Amino acid sequence: MKESKLKITAFDWVPEFAQGNVRDLRLRWALNEAGLDYEVETLAQGDQKKAVNVARQPFGQVPVIENDGKPMFESGAIVWRIAEASIALLPNDLGARDRVFSWYFAALNTVEPEIMMLAMLDFFASDKEAAARLRPDVIDAVQGRLNRLSDALEDRDWLVGDRFTVADLMMATVLRILKHTDIVAGHPALDAYLLRCTDRPAFVAALDAQLQTFSEHAAKYGGAA
Amino acid sequence: MKESKLKITAFDWVPEFAQGNVRDLRLRWALNEAGLDYEVETLAQGDQKKAVNVARQPFGQVPVIENDGKPMFESGAIVWRIAEASIALLPNDLGARDRVFSWYFAALNTVEPEIMMLAMLDFFASDKEAAARLRPDVIDAVQGRLNRLSDALEDRDWLVGDRFTVADLMMATVLRILKHTDIVAGHPALDAYLLRCTDRPAFVAALDAQLQTFSEHAAKYGGAA
Repeated sequence: MKESKLKITAFDWVPEFAQGNVRDLRLRWALNEAGLDYEVETLAQGDQKKAVNVARQPFGQVPVIENDGKPMFESGAIVWRIAEASIALLPNDLGARDRVFSWYFAALNTVEPEIMMLAMLDFFASDKEAAARLRPDVIDAVQGRLNRLSDALEDRDWLVGDRFTVADLMMATVLRILKHTDIVAGHPALDAYLLRCTDRPAFVAALDAQLQTFSEHAAKYGGAA
Repeated sequence: MKESKLKITAFDWVPEFAQGNVRDLRLRWALNEAGLDYEVETLAQGDQKKAVNVARQPFGQVPVIENDGKPMFESGAIVWRIAEASIALLPNDLGARDRVFSWYFAALNTVEPEIMMLAMLDFFASDKEAAARLRPDVIDAVQGRLNRLSDALEDRDWLVGDRFTVADLMMATVLRILKHTDIVAGHPALDAYLLRCTDRPAFVAALDAQLQTFSEHAAKYGGAA
């Protein structure tokens, strides 16, 4: 990652339930922690499906990062590359790095899929009654993951060692997808952990930046800021 | 990764719907492609939740890898580390590696979550009627991902460049989760792609090894081989 020409993509506006969860937030947070400046190219709703974006993001989503013209997609891939460029997000010790790498994938491939299943039921299901009937199964699955996560954290502040790493950054963005529920609040250790992560100035600035863009464009969509 | 002391964990048996999908298959396949020998520690059903396993796998799952006594968990983290140790799975060119890294996360964080949602409905939902009513929504989500994947692949054999990489390995294991359906068969380019991946001797040997262990222990569980 070179500081001079980093550009990320983000939406100019999204519906309220998605505000603060769009995945460019992960990049903004990581870039802020690493002290790297970046530009934002905002996409209007619908533009993500156009050929120019699909050429750099095959699933027609945001974000991508362009580093001196070379694009990467998938927030998981991009944020790890940012982390490798900065001691702020990764320890130097190789064994510790491997533990961070394991927890990083745990966030994205073990915890997030269960949480996204709940988000599907709560936000996207067209048959609301069927979704309500399946919700207990999915809540059980989410709680199972959070119980194990809470056990693993014990009374420590961070997932690996005694410092914030990119694994905490990613896990926090995953836990935040539950913010429309009181599920995290039911796990005091995780609730405190999440607050510890999101109290960081680099997160606060990242969230403010994402929401500020939505606010500026809300009128265009007749939507909530 | 050092060849001398690699050990992975796997189950001695799982129910039929899970046979051939347990995530140690990813490690076996990658290790075979890389030409690395490994030992397998098999866990009886239930042992994955015991303290000795949770200490190395916080979510009480398989697989882990132990490399000279140092454990890693999450198949996504482990397989990438295996890939970094072998030209068989990753190109040397850094730009190509970044593209592989993006596609690798696309498999695990964009395609697999939608497919696992379908697996949840088809295998785990306690309310079968509600699951059936939600299925069209989830099928739409899965088909959306597969349409984009098929478009991205075009008429090429592999996701990145003109060679098999660890991104193809991971994407193939994700697509195989749909083998109880005819969804992949409905996308001829993806169907051919998946066959191209799973025809590889390293995959065939990995699958045989996993299924052989299940077969040896089936009687113990009164289950299907």
